[in-house]
Amino acid sequence: MKRKICVVVTARPSYSRIQTVLSAIREHPDLELQLVVAATALLEKYGSVVPDMEKEGFPVYARVYNQVEGSLPAQAVKTTGLGLIELPAILNDARPHMVVTIGDRFETLSTAIAAAYMNIPLVHIQGGEVTGSIDEKVRHAITKLADLHLVASESARTRLIRMGEDPATVFHTGCPSIDLAARLIQAPDPDFDPFQYYQGVGKRFSFPTGYLVVLQHAVPTEYTHARAHIEITLQAILETNIPTCWFWPNGDAGADDTARGIRSFREKYPGSTIHFFKNMAPLHFLKLLKNAACLVGNSSAGIRECAFLGIPAVNIGTRQQGRERARNVIDTEYDQAAISKALITQLAHGKYPQDTLYGNGDSGRKIAGILATVPLSFVKQLTY
Amino acid sequence: MKRKICVVVTARPSYSRIQTVLSAIREHPDLELQLVVAATALLEKYGSVVPDMEKEGFPVYARVYNQVEGSLPAQAVKTTGLGLIELPAILNDARPHMVVTIGDRFETLSTAIAAAYMNIPLVHIQGGEVTGSIDEKVRHAITKLADLHLVASESARTRLIRMGEDPATVFHTGCPSIDLAARLIQAPDPDFDPFQYYQGVGKRFSFPTGYLVVLQHAVPTEYTHARAHIEITLQAILETNIPTCWFWPNGDAGADDTARGIRSFREKYPGSTIHFFKNMAPLHFLKLLKNAACLVGNSSAGIRECAFLGIPAVNIGTRQQGRERARNVIDTEYDQAAISKALITQLAHGKYPQDTLYGNGDSGRKIAGILATVPLSFVKQLTY
Amino acid sequence: MKRKICVVVTARPSYSRIQTVLSAIREHPDLELQLVVAATALLEKYGSVVPDMEKEGFPVYARVYNQVEGSLPAQAVKTTGLGLIELPAILNDARPHMVVTIGDRFETLSTAIAAAYMNIPLVHIQGGEVTGSIDEKVRHAITKLADLHLVASESARTRLIRMGEDPATVFHTGCPSIDLAARLIQAPDPDFDPFQYYQGVGKRFSFPTGYLVVLQHAVPTEYTHARAHIEITLQAILETNIPTCWFWPNGDAGADDTARGIRSFREKYPGSTIHFFKNMAPLHFLKLLKNAACLVGNSSAGIRECAFLGIPAVNIGTRQQGRERARNVIDTEYDQAAISKALITQLAHGKYPQDTLYGNGDSGRKIAGILATVPLSFVKQLTY
Amino acid sequence: MKRKICVVVTARPSYSRIQTVLSAIREHPDLELQLVVAATALLEKYGSVVPDMEKEGFPVYARVYNQVEGSLPAQAVKTTGLGLIELPAILNDARPHMVVTIGDRFETLSTAIAAAYMNIPLVHIQGGEVTGSIDEKVRHAITKLADLHLVASESARTRLIRMGEDPATVFHTGCPSIDLAARLIQAPDPDFDPFQYYQGVGKRFSFPTGYLVVLQHAVPTEYTHARAHIEITLQAILETNIPTCWFWPNGDAGADDTARGIRSFREKYPGSTIHFFKNMAPLHFLKLLKNAACLVGNSSAGIRECAFLGIPAVNIGTRQQGRERARNVIDTEYDQAAISKALITQLAHGKYPQDTLYGNGDSGRKIAGILATVPLSFVKQLTY
Repeated sequence: MKRKICVVVTARPSYSRIQTVLSAIREHPDLELQLVVAATALLEKYGSVVPDMEKEGFPVYARVYNQVEGSLPAQAVKTTGLGLIELPAILNDARPHMVVTIGDRFETLSTAIAAAYMNIPLVHIQGGEVTGSIDEKVRHAITKLADLHLVASESARTRLIRMGEDPATVFHTGCPSIDLAARLIQAPDPDFDPFQYYQGVGKRFSFPTGYLVVLQHAVPTEYTHARAHIEITLQAILETNIPTCWFWPNGDAGADDTARGIRSFREKYPGSTIHFFKNMAPLHFLKLLKNAACLVGNSSAGIRECAFLGIPAVNIGTRQQGRERARNVIDTEYDQAAISKALITQLAHGKYPQDTLYGNGDSGRKIAGILATVPLSFVKQLTY
Repeated sequence: MKRKICVVVTARPSYSRIQTVLSAIREHPDLELQLVVAATALLEKYGSVVPDMEKEGFPVYARVYNQVEGSLPAQAVKTTGLGLIELPAILNDARPHMVVTIGDRFETLSTAIAAAYMNIPLVHIQGGEVTGSIDEKVRHAITKLADLHLVASESARTRLIRMGEDPATVFHTGCPSIDLAARLIQAPDPDFDPFQYYQGVGKRFSFPTGYLVVLQHAVPTEYTHARAHIEITLQAILETNIPTCWFWPNGDAGADDTARGIRSFREKYPGSTIHFFKNMAPLHFLKLLKNAACLVGNSSAGIRECAFLGIPAVNIGTRQQGRERARNVIDTEYDQAAISKALITQLAHGKYPQDTLYGNGDSGRKIAGILATVPLSFVKQLTY
Repeated sequence: MKRKICVVVTARPSYSRIQTVLSAIREHPDLELQLVVAATALLEKYGSVVPDMEKEGFPVYARVYNQVEGSLPAQAVKTTGLGLIELPAILNDARPHMVVTIGDRFETLSTAIAAAYMNIPLVHIQGGEVTGSIDEKVRHAITKLADLHLVASESARTRLIRMGEDPATVFHTGCPSIDLAARLIQAPDPDFDPFQYYQGVGKRFSFPTGYLVVLQHAVPTEYTHARAHIEITLQAILETNIPTCWFWPNGDAGADDTARGIRSFREKYPGSTIHFFKNMAPLHFLKLLKNAACLVGNSSAGIRECAFLGIPAVNIGTRQQGRERARNVIDTEYDQAAISKALITQLAHGKYPQDTLYGNGDSGRKIAGILATVPLSFVKQLTY
Repeated sequence: MKRKICVVVTARPSYSRIQTVLSAIREHPDLELQLVVAATALLEKYGSVVPDMEKEGFPVYARVYNQVEGSLPAQAVKTTGLGLIELPAILNDARPHMVVTIGDRFETLSTAIAAAYMNIPLVHIQGGEVTGSIDEKVRHAITKLADLHLVASESARTRLIRMGEDPATVFHTGCPSIDLAARLIQAPDPDFDPFQYYQGVGKRFSFPTGYLVVLQHAVPTEYTHARAHIEITLQAILETNIPTCWFWPNGDAGADDTARGIRSFREKYPGSTIHFFKNMAPLHFLKLLKNAACLVGNSSAGIRECAFLGIPAVNIGTRQQGRERARNVIDTEYDQAAISKALITQLAHGKYPQDTLYGNGDSGRKIAGILATVPLSFVKQLTY
């Protein structure tokens, strides 16, 4: 009998990271994929992943519309609560051998708790890393609920073992987000024009080089400063006068203020060189990234994918604080002058050599192999 | 301004453990108590703690009726989810400086997540211990969401620091459940007759000595065996023919089967020497324990309070597996002969000397002192 | 293509009433049954209907564990809310052509709202009747959400049309609860011994005649008086000294107090002639009823099934106030003397002639026929 | 003791309608206002009413963030469910003498059910009217849960009595939405410039006359056609080339498609004469309406407020089907030519005489008077 692997995807970036794992599960003779889509991953406002999944041929097993509207911390709590109320019926119906959860978004604690309480072995991808924000608490809490850990780096593995996880349950597989980047490098698409696929709003410019990419999300533990933070970055980018692809924030606490800052900026500077996109399919985003002069903001893409692609990154604020990084990243405070200075340094430097710190492109396959063979267990204990 | 300390109590045993902390917070000049009662702690079936709280003069700030009926794992998930949906409004209204959660019951993850996501410093009492069952996962997950750890033993402190908690946030205060036991020893009540206060059902017998106390809960990670497990213990006790006070199980997954086993036993053996109680006020329970010949089952009381009181305990199965224990405990499998043998050994041995492994009676006061003075923070990071 | 008929059963008595409809749907060549079981209908405490359904060969399409524990009005509200949160996923998956809801229990408003808001034609069985308690509000509210009305009596039909329902959507089918009674009369089982099938608790006595049956539920709109109400009836029955089969109350607001009154009575009068049952399978209950000397309490069975079976009924209080009744019913206040007096009158009178006020035994078949052919619509408007 | 009146406002238009009632309750010596704000009324996306309430000096008693994101019917069901889960704690805390609910929005059934099940007298404002869409079912279902009915017209009163409501509980007070309009007429503000208060997007034009106002919401019972419907209206308005103030749709099922249609139109016709607004404060909206040449769409404002103000209205589709109307309304299908034709007729006609069909401006005061004196009851029965 095939092992049924239930993967719960709750946000677009999680789908980007897990896509090659989904393919590898589907193609593995001993595995069967049960794909559950939830929260913002279902909502067009945040770029529903369902059309992309359908394009890739991944059937959706169940949908959980649990996003409570609004970007206050209370809504994050309730969204997690609604997830817990809806997941048991799905898991009772699916009866998976394992449940897979990805990363450290707040609502993924629903997945972890539901699996743990229902005695289903829980697999966590991307545990053992260190960052700022609420993600740091969420990530390690999920580790403690998880029975199997598939980590992106050797230092993540070391950390989990120090945290008392049984070494036999911690596998260094690399981060599957690198798989797509590796695939892209092997088969580049020189003609990708984002304006053609994704309209976005703002001034258009000619590709394929000499532009910035910005992704800056609200930080839930600092959500009352979200507007100030985004305005600083907007001003810094405005002054460079460089063509820029700017992405809309995710749904974390504070997002409404981030969005408000962007909208207000757009009205004030209708002639700026910034073009705003809601989101892109995973491979399209990587194509955009691959030719960018620099990534700016606080997305983990600056640290993961950009390390592999050799793209310079300016990382702002606390969100990625502590995450292991390659030489492509310069960190700055929420400070316009500091951001400008870091950006100038990166533009002057240009591309970095590839760094495989987060994997070398075969994580999906490795992960599927482990899922197919690892002993199944839902009972664990601290090792000390 | 006083610090507002919001304590969320979700079950009767948690109230027993925290009672002296509540008193100490109330009496501290710099602290204000906000007491939230939730889940089974509100339901008469499980012995609502509200009348006891009122008797002790603790006003209830808010009530969360979030217990979903039934004893399947799915209901544990949903109960946790309902808690998450209701707590934000309460915390938004109370605006506490800290939220306190106790122990490792499944539904306490609601409290931990709500506080963490709402940027309120989270205090965890009784972290760092090691056990079996789902409690083990829950306890360490809460640790990873908590900002302040008030632990019962030195080894618990060591473990939390190894797990990457900042040593400055981990305090060895002892377990407040010992406070009540210490108070009891100083002022014993020789005339306590449980039949007078709590009717219960079954044969009555004369106190105050020569009886057993049994507490055996279903183990959620083994909930499909709950009936078999309780029947084994019932048979073992039946054969001793010793007067016995037996307590009803809590609401964990499997509880319905435990209850069914007990009901069926009662019908089959109406003349047995076992008397069944639903629950008792914390101090009454300790009085009962203090004069018992032996505690049998899988309650942590056998390991905590009995260590301090010197009462022999026979601990059955995996629920307390790994929890640090004094010499008063003999562990056995779910096996009638093994339980009988352990019981005979304990009855022959009689009382043990006091062991202060879990505290010496001043935890409540220590905890209040720390809550009043510790720096407030809701941002943390793994120390390695 | 067959019409998919989704029937949502939320309580044991609703299953009793709908059982012949389920059979008729299953056997109809143009219909397909999707059976959803929810709320107390899933819980053993209230007599889960699932084993009975399995025995009858009705496969369960989905289960909704939405009962929030406790018997305060707040829990009734939340149980309804949880139902609303869980039903959409089920209806999205089932894609029924019609949703069927039965009667007037509070939690059935979940079913009605979910179907109405999701543009699925809603069928209501047993609308148009008049009673007391919250049921009266619930029943008529469901009528206003329903697209098709299958009513038990001609006067119910008249009422619905006066209320502004389109006459073309109101069908007088009789009450399917009568179908089972009719079937029973045709094929009686002289040897049914309830003690053999259902242990219950209390004194046993010899069947088959000369006994009372009591069903008295808490009345949500008077729930603070539930204990007083049940005690009055218990005393009245105690004094008769007649063998009695007494059924446990349902989960309505106040039920805990009703149960407490019964438990307290049992302790005080261990030698009474009352035997307490949790519940029975629909046909077994009718067998019991058929030979009873009198039904006492506030169940609609006294008014529906007893009218057909000719069993005298003493109906107490406001719960059935206004419901159309045959000559077999004597109404009384919550008053011990009044109940005793009515009971004496009924025992002196003995059996009544059959009254087909609520149907003559072919409702199930009629209902299935209508479901198979009626035009499907989810848009309606008041007729005036 | 003052009667505590809990008013639950769940959407901006409901606030507009109830505003004078809130004032009248606040000013009444025997009444105390408890204002609960919920659902889209809290969200900036839909124009949070909280700032307006604060400006008017209405303190908010509690906030219920229960809007589940997305515009599918399932989300409407869940939003209602979340409301039911959160309201009991608020009502238990507030202990109002009456709960007031307004109109017929889907999520107001939460308010009605919570009050009814918790034995709190329920007051319904604007019952007894007839329309299309899901509102028609919701409105009459609320009637059946309500104990007191304050209706806008004599025919509404007649209908409720025919529906079996006790005449003693049905009061013709007029619609309080007319109060604001009456107040506006008495004290006009000639200088209101919407562009100054509310930026909106699109071309600006000079006020104060010669413009259209459009409000067209998705119709939940036809939500799959929402995009087609809005496109027809957009084209019809585009062709007139008349300056137009167009309002964003509410959050009903289908709203995402309505919004998509508008966004797509804006990209295609950046030079159109349409200016889009998210929303306006009640009085500002009325000022805008008062000088408009015609209201187009399917808002009830075309039928209520416009009747009083004498503004011509073109009412499109089924949403207002059956609602009693004055001579100022021309109804059309979802058809571009029909809309254009009706619009031309209305522009040629110009203003209509005032019609007080829905009230003459003193509803708020009347309603407060009734709330202060009417007998309190939560038990009712059909009158026939």
